Amino acid sequence: METINTRRTIRKYTTQPVSDELLNRLLAEASHTQTMGNLQLYSVVITKNDAQKAALAPAHFNQPMVKNASVVLTICADFRRTTIWCENRKAEPGYNNFLSFINAATDALLFTQTFCNLAEEEGLGLCFLGTTVYMPKMIIDVLKLPKLVMPIATLTVGWPDETPELSDRLDVSAFVHQETYHDYTPQDIDKHYAKKESLEENKHFVTINNKETLAQIFTDIRYTKRDNEAMSTGMLEALRQQGFLE
Amino acid sequence: METINTRRTIRKYTTQPVSDELLNRLLAEASHTQTMGNLQLYSVVITKNDAQKAALAPAHFNQPMVKNASVVLTICADFRRTTIWCENRKAEPGYNNFLSFINAATDALLFTQTFCNLAEEEGLGLCFLGTTVYMPKMIIDVLKLPKLVMPIATLTVGWPDETPELSDRLDVSAFVHQETYHDYTPQDIDKHYAKKESLEENKHFVTINNKETLAQIFTDIRYTKRDNEAMSTGMLEALRQQGFLE
Repeated sequence: METINTRRTIRKYTTQPVSDELLNRLLAEASHTQTMGNLQLYSVVITKNDAQKAALAPAHFNQPMVKNASVVLTICADFRRTTIWCENRKAEPGYNNFLSFINAATDALLFTQTFCNLAEEEGLGLCFLGTTVYMPKMIIDVLKLPKLVMPIATLTVGWPDETPELSDRLDVSAFVHQETYHDYTPQDIDKHYAKKESLEENKHFVTINNKETLAQIFTDIRYTKRDNEAMSTGMLEALRQQGFLE
Repeated sequence: METINTRRTIRKYTTQPVSDELLNRLLAEASHTQTMGNLQLYSVVITKNDAQKAALAPAHFNQPMVKNASVVLTICADFRRTTIWCENRKAEPGYNNFLSFINAATDALLFTQTFCNLAEEEGLGLCFLGTTVYMPKMIIDVLKLPKLVMPIATLTVGWPDETPELSDRLDVSAFVHQETYHDYTPQDIDKHYAKKESLEENKHFVTINNKETLAQIFTDIRYTKRDNEAMSTGMLEALRQQGFLE
């Protein structure tokens, strides 16, 4: 899995389609990922149809990858299939609650990441769309997701048509704690974020946005308190609508 | 990454320790996983100390792997480091909300799974402890996790001392939906679950527990409605305590 060290998010794809054979093989292999009680609490909705891609796009802020990728995968936390199985087998399911959502979301995300690692090893390019949890109700409507199914991740998948720069990452010492959590002093923060803050592209980003610091790009533009609070409400409403908060 | 097709959860380990060099390399490589805004919204608490392992064990129902593994990793959704960075950079963070928890949990789980894929390729044996979200407040206390840090996954890591049977998995057709979600008929359920229900070990499990169906093992014993509801309350209390529901 040497590809992990040179991986980058790919947003531009060639017109070559991703074959069903390859897609199915990667999905089957990814399903070997560990899962709660071997229940595989996830489902994957595959979008290839142009009209469906266009319908999904607004939920992802119309990022062009959604329409341009060969395949869009929406991975869902799914306790519905298991619940129907129970109902058909004289068993009384109790999975319409928050913990069960977390269990299913965990299964879905672990499965998703193995799929990513396998697909990237195969030479495919991927973009993970964090927007999936921003306006989940739009996605629920387009994909006709029933109760106990909640979209949790989206991948656009295709053959790469770009080679962007590698992204920087924090040093391991920035996110690892020995035995207990050791809180960050201002000096720790200076040390861990020095590299990121000194990158030319980040300095440029601060300048063109008329900001004083890189952190302000995140708090004032990309992930604002106001947006986060509104989307928290929307996400909780969607969880209630899908039956996970009963 | 051919190991994915023969992976199994490993609960018994040799006494050979996992070296710091290997552990740090795998953590560094895993950090190339995609992350929201390149913020890496996770932290990893490493437990090697026997007293700390013993303190963590009850939160994981005293499963023996916690004490016997060379290393225990608790991976946390972490918006604290980013929040402190913002506070030190004249930026006003707004990450004490539910969406931000989901964002950080997503980052943490994707990172966790790449770590698993890499570690298994290296020959290490892992057990993913789903119990992490059952009694999170115990883990928060033992690891001294501050606000905006929430435990989300635990891995016990060591060199394998067993080769259990491979687990069965559902066929891809059981969890994949084309274009929209197609709900499951009783016939679909029969087809998708036939293999699992016919396995000798599962039939044996039903018999010794005096149950009528395999599904009842899950609803009546392993993951009951009553436990799920109690643990949902506990998880939401922990999220509130950690400052993610403000």
